[in-house]
Amino acid sequence: MYQLVLIRHGESVWNKENRFTGWTDVDLSPAGVEEAREAGSLLKEEGFDFPLAYTSYLKRAIKTLHYILEEMDLLWIPVKKTWRLNEKHYGELQGLNKSEMAARYGEEQVHIWRRSYDVPPAPLNPDDPRHPVHQDRYKNIGAENIPSTESLKDTVARIVPYWQDEMQPDLRKHRRLLVAAHGNSLRGIIKHLKQMSDSDIISLNLPTGIPYVFEFDENMQLTKDYFLGDPEKIRELMEKVASQGKAR
Amino acid sequence: MYQLVLIRHGESVWNKENRFTGWTDVDLSPAGVEEAREAGSLLKEEGFDFPLAYTSYLKRAIKTLHYILEEMDLLWIPVKKTWRLNEKHYGELQGLNKSEMAARYGEEQVHIWRRSYDVPPAPLNPDDPRHPVHQDRYKNIGAENIPSTESLKDTVARIVPYWQDEMQPDLRKHRRLLVAAHGNSLRGIIKHLKQMSDSDIISLNLPTGIPYVFEFDENMQLTKDYFLGDPEKIRELMEKVASQGKAR
Repeated sequence: MYQLVLIRHGESVWNKENRFTGWTDVDLSPAGVEEAREAGSLLKEEGFDFPLAYTSYLKRAIKTLHYILEEMDLLWIPVKKTWRLNEKHYGELQGLNKSEMAARYGEEQVHIWRRSYDVPPAPLNPDDPRHPVHQDRYKNIGAENIPSTESLKDTVARIVPYWQDEMQPDLRKHRRLLVAAHGNSLRGIIKHLKQMSDSDIISLNLPTGIPYVFEFDENMQLTKDYFLGDPEKIRELMEKVASQGKAR
Repeated sequence: MYQLVLIRHGESVWNKENRFTGWTDVDLSPAGVEEAREAGSLLKEEGFDFPLAYTSYLKRAIKTLHYILEEMDLLWIPVKKTWRLNEKHYGELQGLNKSEMAARYGEEQVHIWRRSYDVPPAPLNPDDPRHPVHQDRYKNIGAENIPSTESLKDTVARIVPYWQDEMQPDLRKHRRLLVAAHGNSLRGIIKHLKQMSDSDIISLNLPTGIPYVFEFDENMQLTKDYFLGDPEKIRELMEKVASQGKAR
């Protein structure tokens, strides 16, 4: 049997302020650190073990992974970091407050930017200091890969080939894999694994800090997927994420 | 020019209690965390930058590295972890208090165990739960590599080939390398780089949390090595380490 565990990073300092984050490298909030530690101790309690982990180039995911590994006494395992697991790039919206945007452009437009499958927000100008071309960490990923904005479709298109070429072979080899990343890059993997439609993936609101377990048979066919933890708490978390685009 | 920076982890909870640690996986003390953060902000201030880092399988070194990388905004760089950078294995002494040992066996014997080049402490029995054969993380390193005890000579013998086969080629390729590890594994690298005698390496007391910079010319010949930071503070730290074997 093969086992994949996906986890969305806990609250960041910008989640808290309800701002569009995307590729902005913001830190976890104290509550986000706590979510990560709890996920780690839950995984340990439930007997999970991993020989390898993946994460993104963004510290809120990397630190989530580190806290989980620390709780599991697995800080020593190899960790692969990739920009392909980064959050969806939110273009010009990065840094703006979601509620302000909703009050200004209407909830519907914000909902489209956040939740449409193929409409990207307005692109960041390459001269903008927020643009990833100005950051060292993206210097070796190839200019053609650096986004100025992304729709969910674009995010899916960059993570799925990486899943197929790198992550799935590692899952086959090591049998167990832990991935700490972001709402939309994880949606890309989930859409692929569960063969979900464009509209179904949009309505999946992944809760933060909750391990999402995928089990596969010997032929790598998905047999089972479930969230680990208290179902009531998980439902509340999913509703909280879904309501973030509302004006308030 | 090529640049290698070695750093010995900061104070651990056992350093503080003056106990032999070796391969025991003890955590950093709050002071050790502070040392790591300070090293990171010093390296950042001085304009250092690294595309790759190395550390051991032990959390006091791994966490030291993570705190440094966090301060430098480099959490995203690849990190290679290896048991070969682990501290010297202290055999049966692991867990015992250095001052108690000095009072019981005499300072001279403790000094030999801590500081002789080729006398290893009494080995751990393989049935002892402290023995690394019982730990998952050493399952894939090859039974012939798992020590029951080590002299400094043994530690040097396991790190030098790794330096030559893995680390030096990475330094050649990436030009800059950061290594967060332990007093004795770093001594192995330093002895090799500076072609020091057995007795000279024994009297080198590496200060904790102080970046030790090595510079090489285009032919990979060592041109310069120096500690980064306040010379007076560094001298005090070296004396503190040297005096740990004394009864008190």
